[in-house]
Amino acid sequence: MTEPAPVYASGVDHERLTAQLRFILEVDKLKRILRRNLLVDGSRRENDAEHSWHLALTARVFAEYAPAGTDIDRVVELLLIHDIVEIDAGDTFVYDAHASRSQRERECVAADRIYALLPEEQGARLRELWEEFEAAKTPEARFAKAVDRLSPMLANWHTDGGTWVQYGVSKEQVMEKVRIIAEGSEALGSYAAALIEDADRRGYFAG
Amino acid sequence: MTEPAPVYASGVDHERLTAQLRFILEVDKLKRILRRNLLVDGSRRENDAEHSWHLALTARVFAEYAPAGTDIDRVVELLLIHDIVEIDAGDTFVYDAHASRSQRERECVAADRIYALLPEEQGARLRELWEEFEAAKTPEARFAKAVDRLSPMLANWHTDGGTWVQYGVSKEQVMEKVRIIAEGSEALGSYAAALIEDADRRGYFAG
Repeated sequence: MTEPAPVYASGVDHERLTAQLRFILEVDKLKRILRRNLLVDGSRRENDAEHSWHLALTARVFAEYAPAGTDIDRVVELLLIHDIVEIDAGDTFVYDAHASRSQRERECVAADRIYALLPEEQGARLRELWEEFEAAKTPEARFAKAVDRLSPMLANWHTDGGTWVQYGVSKEQVMEKVRIIAEGSEALGSYAAALIEDADRRGYFAG
Repeated sequence: MTEPAPVYASGVDHERLTAQLRFILEVDKLKRILRRNLLVDGSRRENDAEHSWHLALTARVFAEYAPAGTDIDRVVELLLIHDIVEIDAGDTFVYDAHASRSQRERECVAADRIYALLPEEQGARLRELWEEFEAAKTPEARFAKAVDRLSPMLANWHTDGGTWVQYGVSKEQVMEKVRIIAEGSEALGSYAAALIEDADRRGYFAG
């Protein structure tokens, strides 16, 4: 990739702005990382960038279902950056047990490279946010995870079973994801459980 | 589109949650609204959803270039919703003077329909945010507009002139957008001006 054009603004640290631009241009690649699930209309597979937008907006709309005191602005920030490592590590299908074993290592190498494009303290801060999302210990990270797990369920339910049918996913495998949703939001967990019961009646699960 | 599955969670207002789900599923369509500009690697046109994600993240990374006191969380919120009306109204190319004349009317009709999917007070709040973005009177809306105008310039500069060359855009037309960027951020305005001078030397503009 060619470098951004030189900057002549007074009062601006050019080296710093150039580093930030390099990161912004690099993360454009997230638009080319395809996920397994389809758009809600079934027309094509979803990419990570548009997925991240949809989750951030969903978190805002569903803010009232987060535990009291959850900082939704922080949830949005977590969701905006949560998939950036997939530029290098690729999307790992949540029901692919083999790929999931090497996922953490591949994603850490990716985080090392991509966040280092930014000025040091800024890169460290965004990387910490990503680690917070991964660890799922804070209410913000748990709610972000809940929204992230609910979203493909909605898409699958609206596309005649979607990836559940395509990859022969069992109800038990999906119920494990419902548990993650319930950890982040009681209301969304209940909704997801009802959705999965309905999907089961429709015969979308294997086994 | 089929309706979301029924909900059985206790303590949740089912009608309210169903309205929110309908909105969330509806805005999935933003992933199919194509803009004129290409991705940074030139591989295809960008869609509104991934564009909104990129802007929200860019606003975070460039937060220090917003005027002191600007609420970046609010900027992010404005950027997440700023293009939703294009689901009905379509993308209006910023250099298409004819389409720009009817744009406001088309977008208001779209906002009336789409935000009305949400529970009333929530829909009214998001619509007000969109109006705030459009009016460009607050520092948050001006900074959001600055990021929105800068982003396609970066893509064009990195794709040998991109839509500037494709649609025969003049330097004077682009300088009008640089003015909007400068209104939201002095530093980003200076950077954009330098970028356009460089693009001019490379012969990317018509006339």
